[in-house]
Amino acid sequence: MFEQILENVCQRRPLVHCITNYITTNDCANIVLACGASPTMAEAEQETAEIASIADAVDINIGNLNTMTVAAMHQAIGAANQHHVPVVLDPVGAGASSYRMDTLRDFFARYQFAVIRGNVSELLAVGGAASNTKGVDAGAADAVTEENLEERVAFFKQLSTKLGAVVSVSGAIDIIASPEKAYICRNGHPMMSRVTGTGCMLSALTAAYCGANHENILEAAAAATVAMGVAGDIAYRKTTEAGLGTGSFRVYLMDAISLMGAETLNGGMKVEVR
Amino acid sequence: MFEQILENVCQRRPLVHCITNYITTNDCANIVLACGASPTMAEAEQETAEIASIADAVDINIGNLNTMTVAAMHQAIGAANQHHVPVVLDPVGAGASSYRMDTLRDFFARYQFAVIRGNVSELLAVGGAASNTKGVDAGAADAVTEENLEERVAFFKQLSTKLGAVVSVSGAIDIIASPEKAYICRNGHPMMSRVTGTGCMLSALTAAYCGANHENILEAAAAATVAMGVAGDIAYRKTTEAGLGTGSFRVYLMDAISLMGAETLNGGMKVEVR
Amino acid sequence: MFEQILENVCQRRPLVHCITNYITTNDCANIVLACGASPTMAEAEQETAEIASIADAVDINIGNLNTMTVAAMHQAIGAANQHHVPVVLDPVGAGASSYRMDTLRDFFARYQFAVIRGNVSELLAVGGAASNTKGVDAGAADAVTEENLEERVAFFKQLSTKLGAVVSVSGAIDIIASPEKAYICRNGHPMMSRVTGTGCMLSALTAAYCGANHENILEAAAAATVAMGVAGDIAYRKTTEAGLGTGSFRVYLMDAISLMGAETLNGGMKVEVR
Repeated sequence: MFEQILENVCQRRPLVHCITNYITTNDCANIVLACGASPTMAEAEQETAEIASIADAVDINIGNLNTMTVAAMHQAIGAANQHHVPVVLDPVGAGASSYRMDTLRDFFARYQFAVIRGNVSELLAVGGAASNTKGVDAGAADAVTEENLEERVAFFKQLSTKLGAVVSVSGAIDIIASPEKAYICRNGHPMMSRVTGTGCMLSALTAAYCGANHENILEAAAAATVAMGVAGDIAYRKTTEAGLGTGSFRVYLMDAISLMGAETLNGGMKVEVR
Repeated sequence: MFEQILENVCQRRPLVHCITNYITTNDCANIVLACGASPTMAEAEQETAEIASIADAVDINIGNLNTMTVAAMHQAIGAANQHHVPVVLDPVGAGASSYRMDTLRDFFARYQFAVIRGNVSELLAVGGAASNTKGVDAGAADAVTEENLEERVAFFKQLSTKLGAVVSVSGAIDIIASPEKAYICRNGHPMMSRVTGTGCMLSALTAAYCGANHENILEAAAAATVAMGVAGDIAYRKTTEAGLGTGSFRVYLMDAISLMGAETLNGGMKVEVR
Repeated sequence: MFEQILENVCQRRPLVHCITNYITTNDCANIVLACGASPTMAEAEQETAEIASIADAVDINIGNLNTMTVAAMHQAIGAANQHHVPVVLDPVGAGASSYRMDTLRDFFARYQFAVIRGNVSELLAVGGAASNTKGVDAGAADAVTEENLEERVAFFKQLSTKLGAVVSVSGAIDIIASPEKAYICRNGHPMMSRVTGTGCMLSALTAAYCGANHENILEAAAAATVAMGVAGDIAYRKTTEAGLGTGSFRVYLMDAISLMGAETLNGGMKVEVR
């Protein structure tokens, strides 16, 4: 299903410009390398426009904003939009502070994103930000479950239309939605949430996959989520079989991404399309 | 001895707001997750007060100060004090530069800390900062040994009184002291000092334990030190048995924290109370 | 060949002040510790002169410049030059943006470096910066191969004369050149380029080796490159034998540096002198 997406990453070795948070930036650079792409993590206002304009994809992660990184992000996203470089946005902790929400509102008023990837709560906060609504309905923030799946798929397809971007929602059940079509993925393990940066890494991986597949952003975003989920399954199995913990799980997760081929992906994935 | 402390961490899943240094922030976030708590590493002046006020504990680490992080720390500590959120201070490299000492003096003049955790030299420098004395007596900076233990325990109990905070001193022999009572711990291995950030990680772990045990800060700080020491013992054994080095030791240390239960802790700890 | 270099690192435990990029700073601190030296990563303008002046070596890495770190670097390099502390410069991504080139030009106009370590493209860009030439001849940027080795060795000896520094060029074939003498090293594996920061780590390791061997900078820089290459060989063997990926490779690389002794180094190295 995703063979061509993966092959393009290895063939084209896309340059992925990440402006992410300093907590997980090493993991983000390593996962971009592990999947066969090439990372650059520049974040000085003085050079981000220059670098983003020659990149194949840009990954913007708001997990640790400050005055300097926000300025650098504006430069990078503006240049990427101008040069038709796809931008993946990870709205980490959207809704956790007004600083983050104000920054997001400003982004949506000015720029175009190819993919917005986060957890359910973040995506719902983003929905609010884009329409200038404050706050997030706590009930609506509930996790995606088999019971509410149908309704959630419809909701995220609408959100994709509203935001003009593929919406990639991570959780026990992942939904990757365009206005017309959604991939649903049931791979991965809760242990992934006991390692910092697995979400940030998935956003960087999504940018890498999109960078090599400009003509097919929805499938690229879906393939990245599925690859991460299958890697999580493999890493969890290795960790528990050896009686190890979250430190080893983190290492095996990176191993699995670096060894991921079409055969492993097809053999392990639990995907449907709606 | 520390069963209830550990159980509270797992039950209450405290939100731990760390403003630490960018060298070890990934390790700090991962150890908070590994022990069952939830980290947030926000450090923008624009949001740290907002986030600290809803956290269960705040961890302040001065290992890599700059104008922006110092401003963010003031916001966070001020808000934490106002909302009765316990603050753990890690005075990394106290005494190494006047910038750090000036920042510490300013902190002590304005704020209240629940725990101050560092190595012997840092704690002695802090003692000087709090009383406006400059410099640290080199002789007094000697490590805690079986020979000077009695005297050191008395000294750190006094320092705890003076600073109005639990004093958690790490070394070959650890001392965790309140004005009246001190825990002495003999776990851990010198290999821990050949991995960067084991001290920073212990401070973050201490904040996580305190965040779930507001009513029992001394025991929470002691339990964190003991858990880290027992994890060090386990990781060292695994590393040397397999002929591996410091890279693997670091992974096994995180594994051991993520797998630490009351049984492992009680079985491995070498603790006395004075 | 390099026994004394290694022994001096263990005996003297040099203090290595790194101002590096936040992507790989944890790895840099860990490799300095792994080899037996002691890292400090301070980068606040307010303290870098103070700390650099008491360090045994300074490592400057331009992988993630911003206004604050550039100011901190000027303070540190200036103080190091004044106190005869050797400075290793890693011109990461030199040529990738005018911001980096302007910063490098400014450095070369004012300061003296002991070693400049990077990949071929970076070193060629540096050559341009030092002579105020813009751009780099794309043909000249080709990798060092057995065919062009003779010519490249001559070129880098000249560049060493021009820059007044040992030039340490990393790639499939490494060249470490002074004006008169060059070490050529054929250790290491391409998997090293699939982990972020192996170059940054080598620069930090070079600073550590130089910090303990002020009287012998060329051999110290060569020994660091050879140790890293041998560690890469060992880590690659362990990783592939166990069917693991880049996450495990990174751990084993650090293990190998922490276990590296003269016997392992002599047994594994593929070095010649020209």
